[in-house]
Parts: sequence; C-alpha cells; structure tokens
Amino acid sequence: MTEERERDTALRIEGRNAVLEAFRSGRTIDKLFVLEHCQDGPVQSILREAKKQQTIVKFVRREKLDQLSETGRHQGVIAMAAAYAYSQVDDMLELARERGEAPFLFLLDGIEDPHNLGAIIRTANLAGAHGVIIPRHRAVGLTAVVAKASAGALNYTPVAKVTNLTAEMERLKQQGLWFVCADMGGTTMYELNLKGPIGLVIGNEGDGVSRLVREHCDMIASIPMKGQIDSLNASVAAGVLGFEIVRQRSL
Amino acid sequence: MTEERERDTALRIEGRNAVLEAFRSGRTIDKLFVLEHCQDGPVQSILREAKKQQTIVKFVRREKLDQLSETGRHQGVIAMAAAYAYSQVDDMLELARERGEAPFLFLLDGIEDPHNLGAIIRTANLAGAHGVIIPRHRAVGLTAVVAKASAGALNYTPVAKVTNLTAEMERLKQQGLWFVCADMGGTTMYELNLKGPIGLVIGNEGDGVSRLVREHCDMIASIPMKGQIDSLNASVAAGVLGFEIVRQRSL
Repeated sequence: MTEERERDTALRIEGRNAVLEAFRSGRTIDKLFVLEHCQDGPVQSILREAKKQQTIVKFVRREKLDQLSETGRHQGVIAMAAAYAYSQVDDMLELARERGEAPFLFLLDGIEDPHNLGAIIRTANLAGAHGVIIPRHRAVGLTAVVAKASAGALNYTPVAKVTNLTAEMERLKQQGLWFVCADMGGTTMYELNLKGPIGLVIGNEGDGVSRLVREHCDMIASIPMKGQIDSLNASVAAGVLGFEIVRQRSL
Repeated sequence: MTEERERDTALRIEGRNAVLEAFRSGRTIDKLFVLEHCQDGPVQSILREAKKQQTIVKFVRREKLDQLSETGRHQGVIAMAAAYAYSQVDDMLELARERGEAPFLFLLDGIEDPHNLGAIIRTANLAGAHGVIIPRHRAVGLTAVVAKASAGALNYTPVAKVTNLTAEMERLKQQGLWFVCADMGGTTMYELNLKGPIGLVIGNEGDGVSRLVREHCDMIASIPMKGQIDSLNASVAAGVLGFEIVRQRSL
C-alpha cells in the first residue's frame, strides 16, 4: 500500500472512462498521451474532446505509456491534468442550499486505500451527497489511483481536507447537521431517523471509527450482519449506509 | 488489471511432474499455460487431465512462460491453482434448506478485478447469502488477492464455477429461484419484490450485465442515481442491492 501511495501523484489521469469524464467535466488537461494506431470508439471520443479543448495530443508507443503509468491500467490513454483542487466545507453547504436540499456529507475517518477513497467519492456522487471530508493527516489524498477509482466523480463531488475532524463536526453541528457513524453494537440502520442534514462517518479499513470521533457522533448505526466474518469492506459499508440515507430521504 | 492478475501468485504450480500431480490430486486449476507447439508425451498427459477437469488452457510463447515463472524451471507448463476449492451450486441450495431459508445467491457476470470479487464474497457472507456463482470464462478465479480481499469470507461462503451462466439460471428457475440484475433503466429497487428464493446478478466492471444474461433475468433493478457519473463500483452496487434484499427479507 505505502509503495503504491508513494508512486501515486495527483497529476495523472489514466483509463478511458476517467479521461473522458475529466474532459467532459471541463477540467483542464495539459497534455494527452494516446497509444499510437489506437482508433477505436472510446479513443475517438476522447480525441474529439481533446480537439475541442485544444489539448496537446501525443501519440506514443505502449512502452512509453507503461512507463508513464502509475496504475498499470492506462487502457491506452493518460491525461496530464492540473492537480485536483480541494474544496472548502462551506462550499458544500452552499451547494446544498443552491439545490434546496438538506446537507448530506461523507466524513472519512482515516481511509488509507486509494481504491476505497475513489469508490467512496463515486458513491457520494451517486447518492447525491454534497461533498466528502477527509482529515489532513492519516489518510490518502487525491491521487491518480483515487481519481481513476472515482470513475470521474472527483470532477463533480467536492472533497475538503480538514485538520481536525472532530472540531469540524462540532462546527457543523452548529449549522444543524447530525452525525451518524457505522459501528458494531449500534442501532440497526433501518430503525434510525437518517433524514435531514446529516454527516455519515466512515471509519478506517482496519480499526473502524476512532474513539474520539465516535464520541462526537449523535447516532451509531449498524448494518445487519448475518455472516461469520467481522465487517464489510469500507467502501461497501459506505455504499450500504449512504443508500439507506437515500432511501429514507425519498420516503 | 491484467498485469496485476498475472502477478497474483502464491498459487502457481510449475514443471511437468508438479502440474500433473496437482491435477491427479484433485486440486482445482483455474488456468493452464502450455508452451505452444509442445506436444510430447508428458504434456499430452497434462492436457488430457486438463480436458477432464474443463480447465481453460492457453498456449503461449516461451517469453510469456518465462515472465509468469517464479522458479525459472517451468518446463513448458505452468498451472494457476485456485486458492480455495470450488463448491457445487446444489450444495448452496442444500445450505439454504439446512438453515430453513429461501435460497439467496449472488451471480457474477464476468467480474475481472480480484479486489471486487473478494469484496463481493465478503458482502455475500454478511448478507447471509448461501453462495456466489461465477462463470468459468471471462472472470477472475479464486486467487490469493481474492482470498485476502474477502477478509476470510472464502472460508465460509461457497463459490461455484459454472460453464454456462444462463443455463444455470434456467436450471435454478426450475428450483423456484427468481433472478434480478442491476442495470440502468430498471425499476427502482424499493419498488420490486425481492423476497423469496432469489439470485442477484452483478455485471462486469466496464460493460455491466451482458445482454443474454439480462434477458434471462426476471427483474431489472435500478439503484436511484442522483449524481453526474454513470455507475457505482461493482462491489458497492452488489452491497447496496444485496442489503436491499436483506432489508426486504427482514420486513
């Protein structure tokens, strides 16, 4: 994991879906590398977008792409983009106001796996959440692997980095938000009222939600567990809880 | 992806005697790599065993074998063994009967990422499903990465490999199962009746559920999507739909 994180800079977007989504979202791409002689449909779509935005395109051999690639899964296209900008938490509240919706935020208490972070940002986008808050320390940032795993969601869903997660939670409580975290021994999620302005707290892959953060939560939700093992994958748990919030909001 | 799958080892058996012994001991071999144009006696014996067990055989060039080899002494054959033994679908139905529950199965239509396969087996375990069915072709097998990502669930939740997914679905329909797949343009999952004997079909990461498999499904469920991007991560979608089935079963 650490090794992967160290090779993982924030400037490279790899893979067809991720690159196409980046263009379509209006993201500035400095340079596009495409596998030479590669002319299929998805690549043509990417090249059209590149032309529209006057992006410099370089056709290169596979060895060059492999060498540039950080994920090893470039699918013949790598875009060099400006690093993802972090947002401010207040922009998320503003976004909720604009949409006329109660704020719905994801807070990640130390997610370390870039695949999980990307998948959670993807989930947050599709659940209609207004943003994802991550701690400045003890967590993976917005890297190339995260961007690819988010399948383009990083272009739409704001991500903010905060120094102190519990201080931010207390500040948001004053704005009317309630916080729910997933943990064993909580109340079954169906029995909780998860409507209204809410922050969903997802814990670290190995250790779950830290004690301090848990103490700052208003509710502890548990997913009904019928099997023999301990817990769901962190991004799956975020999906199951996130969409329980979607379901309750739709009632 | 391909690169990672090929690096996903621990379970590689190399050399003629070792491979032949592995087959004869009843060990499950997911895939067999054989040096092209190699037709001598020992290789013929290995190919006969592979045919008996319906193992997928790939004839490759020496460079490919050298690259796959860990020992440097492959003698023209490398077998990729499953980390875990596969089960039979009928054992899953028997497990449901033993527990006095309506059968609940996950069917994976071509999941290629071992992290996703592991996370889905983990989810299936915690959702109380009786097993996971994967196709023999076009899919990742039970590798070391899958086992790790399943967080131990592979020790409890049976996984079966079938040659023809739709034929298996038709056979299971005669046992009373209904099939639901996730796809865009389906009915919102909350509006479907997902109780009773059910098979949940999850599509491939890039392409979703194949047309043929979709046509054999009784219901098409959609997860409410409120964002700008296309789809959830496959293992997250499996979690959201799987736990909607858990919710409905608990009502």
